[in-house]
Amino acid sequence: MTNLHIDETRLLDELRTLATLSEPAAEGAEKPGDTAVTRIVFTRRDQEARAWLALQAKGAGLSIHADAVGNTFFRWQGSEPELPAIATGSHIDAIPNAGMYDGTVGVLGGLEAIRALQAAGFAPKRSIELILFTSEEPTRFGIGCLGSRVLSGTLTAESAAKLRDKDDQSLDEVRRAAGFIAPLASAQLRPGHYAHFVELHIEQGPILEREGLDIGIVTAIAAPASSRITIEGEGGHAGAMLMPIRKDALAAASEVILAVEAAALATGVIDTVATVGMCDVFPGAVNSVPSRVRLSLDVRDIDEGRRDKVLADIQQACEATAAKRGVIITTKVINSDAPASCSPLILDAIEAACNEEQISSQRMVSRAYHDSLFMARICPIAMIFIPCRGGVSHRPDEFSTPESIAQGSRILAKTLATLSSL
Amino acid sequence: MTNLHIDETRLLDELRTLATLSEPAAEGAEKPGDTAVTRIVFTRRDQEARAWLALQAKGAGLSIHADAVGNTFFRWQGSEPELPAIATGSHIDAIPNAGMYDGTVGVLGGLEAIRALQAAGFAPKRSIELILFTSEEPTRFGIGCLGSRVLSGTLTAESAAKLRDKDDQSLDEVRRAAGFIAPLASAQLRPGHYAHFVELHIEQGPILEREGLDIGIVTAIAAPASSRITIEGEGGHAGAMLMPIRKDALAAASEVILAVEAAALATGVIDTVATVGMCDVFPGAVNSVPSRVRLSLDVRDIDEGRRDKVLADIQQACEATAAKRGVIITTKVINSDAPASCSPLILDAIEAACNEEQISSQRMVSRAYHDSLFMARICPIAMIFIPCRGGVSHRPDEFSTPESIAQGSRILAKTLATLSSL
Repeated sequence: MTNLHIDETRLLDELRTLATLSEPAAEGAEKPGDTAVTRIVFTRRDQEARAWLALQAKGAGLSIHADAVGNTFFRWQGSEPELPAIATGSHIDAIPNAGMYDGTVGVLGGLEAIRALQAAGFAPKRSIELILFTSEEPTRFGIGCLGSRVLSGTLTAESAAKLRDKDDQSLDEVRRAAGFIAPLASAQLRPGHYAHFVELHIEQGPILEREGLDIGIVTAIAAPASSRITIEGEGGHAGAMLMPIRKDALAAASEVILAVEAAALATGVIDTVATVGMCDVFPGAVNSVPSRVRLSLDVRDIDEGRRDKVLADIQQACEATAAKRGVIITTKVINSDAPASCSPLILDAIEAACNEEQISSQRMVSRAYHDSLFMARICPIAMIFIPCRGGVSHRPDEFSTPESIAQGSRILAKTLATLSSL
Repeated sequence: MTNLHIDETRLLDELRTLATLSEPAAEGAEKPGDTAVTRIVFTRRDQEARAWLALQAKGAGLSIHADAVGNTFFRWQGSEPELPAIATGSHIDAIPNAGMYDGTVGVLGGLEAIRALQAAGFAPKRSIELILFTSEEPTRFGIGCLGSRVLSGTLTAESAAKLRDKDDQSLDEVRRAAGFIAPLASAQLRPGHYAHFVELHIEQGPILEREGLDIGIVTAIAAPASSRITIEGEGGHAGAMLMPIRKDALAAASEVILAVEAAALATGVIDTVATVGMCDVFPGAVNSVPSRVRLSLDVRDIDEGRRDKVLADIQQACEATAAKRGVIITTKVINSDAPASCSPLILDAIEAACNEEQISSQRMVSRAYHDSLFMARICPIAMIFIPCRGGVSHRPDEFSTPESIAQGSRILAKTLATLSSL
């Protein structure tokens, strides 16, 4: 298939159109040349984007089906439709003031890959499905990869139904209001439902750009664990509360934050990352000693045992701080997922496509997690990374070149062709 | 004046009535027996409380005058009204979910002291004024003791007019809307306008209760300095941003917070306190490395030189962290006030009153600051402290016994009588 043509202009045009279906950028968030995108699951913008995408998929002759949690499946029927299909896809939701490439490149690049295969006269044996996953970002319901978690059975229908957003609306009512009314349990797919899954995505890291590489072939996805740490100390007036008797929750939290950083660095392995991204202080007044602090904790590694050792080290540090300072520290696990290894068969197919196209590639690890992590529970998976400028993501200055995006779409198309013929 | 009668029942009743003029308590803020009070300057609640207080003052035959910033003066005319008056007073505004005694005891205890002197047939030579100060708490405009700062010329009318609240409303428009429309500059009083000022207040510290003392006689008020520290690092995806290249603003902030605590402890003197009460994290997402953090800093001491040494130590620690972590740390001074020493003459008058009443007293330092700190710029001052349970303040469980409050009001009355006769 040497005549495979990716329409780079159309693909970029569609990415830009999708980016306009966004909440307005926060004041000062966009610098010239940036595009800030905010698209929260099941909001009006998200619904508009879903409708627009369905229109493009229909234009490519794909059939459309949505499940109970809003995951949407665009299907190109193969010549042997009873065989498990090949799937690709990603997400279109975006955290507040994020960029225009995270997720969307996998969705629109996947659609363009299918169009390119159609235009080249390719006739798939296995059907090819493009999946739009619901709420990869944890913005609204506090848990990432909501759609793929439910689809893969990682999150039960019962637990999912109980999730609530900050306005105390349940996932169950919100998804119904958005038109997804089947019983939540029906969204779960059995292992083997798909033959293979492969996701195209921007790297969200600096390696490909730094090494001048075209494509990253993802061999494993780091295992994320996230939790909420609450520190309860004792408040009081900032002037009158004497230093020796203080139980300052924020000073205690600071020790915890530094311990989180130290625990990740202590593994000596580049694949370990640990982050405290949120720190809410109560009562939060200039003249009050903080009485309570709530931290978010996010630890990732491709090695689950090493990650859990980091979590244990952090727990130990929390206990030491609690004992030393007379505060109470409690940890609530939000999620603790297993890492995923990618399928050697798909990796080889991607590598063969890169060699055929004479573009450079390198096997690498994904430290960000993606819907692929959960798809790995029900079928063999792999991911295709393209470079992004400075490795930055989740920011308005997130950027990949049109050439990189088209190249990623072309490699995806070739990989899908290979897999669908097996 | 041995027949001086403080109406403890009326005083408590008025404190409780004033406490009802509050925003509703935050969910879970009040435990049984607690009273959460929120009263922000120039809100409807604050205006209601001012009107109610004016009614009580009128009932006591006091004349009423308000200045351009809303400070309100309730005057009992003396027999020699051309002489500089004796003043007492405090504030009625309360930070969110604070208690019902901070400030209010000085206002209603002052009113009750005047009524007791009237009932005892006392005829003052110098006039006695009860002052209600505007916005002792920094909640709305970010600066404490707004009224007494303007009154004493510590804050110029120009600077005051520019203050803005979080909704971007200027002090100037807000105070006009509240009915205080004279030119702001007219609120400044010349040194010598008052002969003496004495303020009754709960201790907001644990010493009186612990030592079983009835009255604290304040000899000095600690000098507060507050500033805003902004740490700018580099954001990014929590999974993809590798540990060795991070410039995590929250990890850097944690070092600063611990350095603040260490700098205060390092003086080895109980009178030094330093607090980080606010910590705002941007973007504040579980899966984002913090790119920017804003901290509040509050440092107090009765020794200005020692306090400024602590500030310098903190500044040095900020610079070390900035250099080590490659982040940018900027400090903006909000206010830096000089400590105040109290007038030996007033201290002796308070002590004499305590001896006459045969109640225990002790000279002590105020580590919290009060409107007295700024009144000290224009006249000799002192403060009368009463015990509060556990030393807690700015919390719904703030508490002083009715006996303590009445005792404080009685000592204030006797002190006012002594001073007004001089």
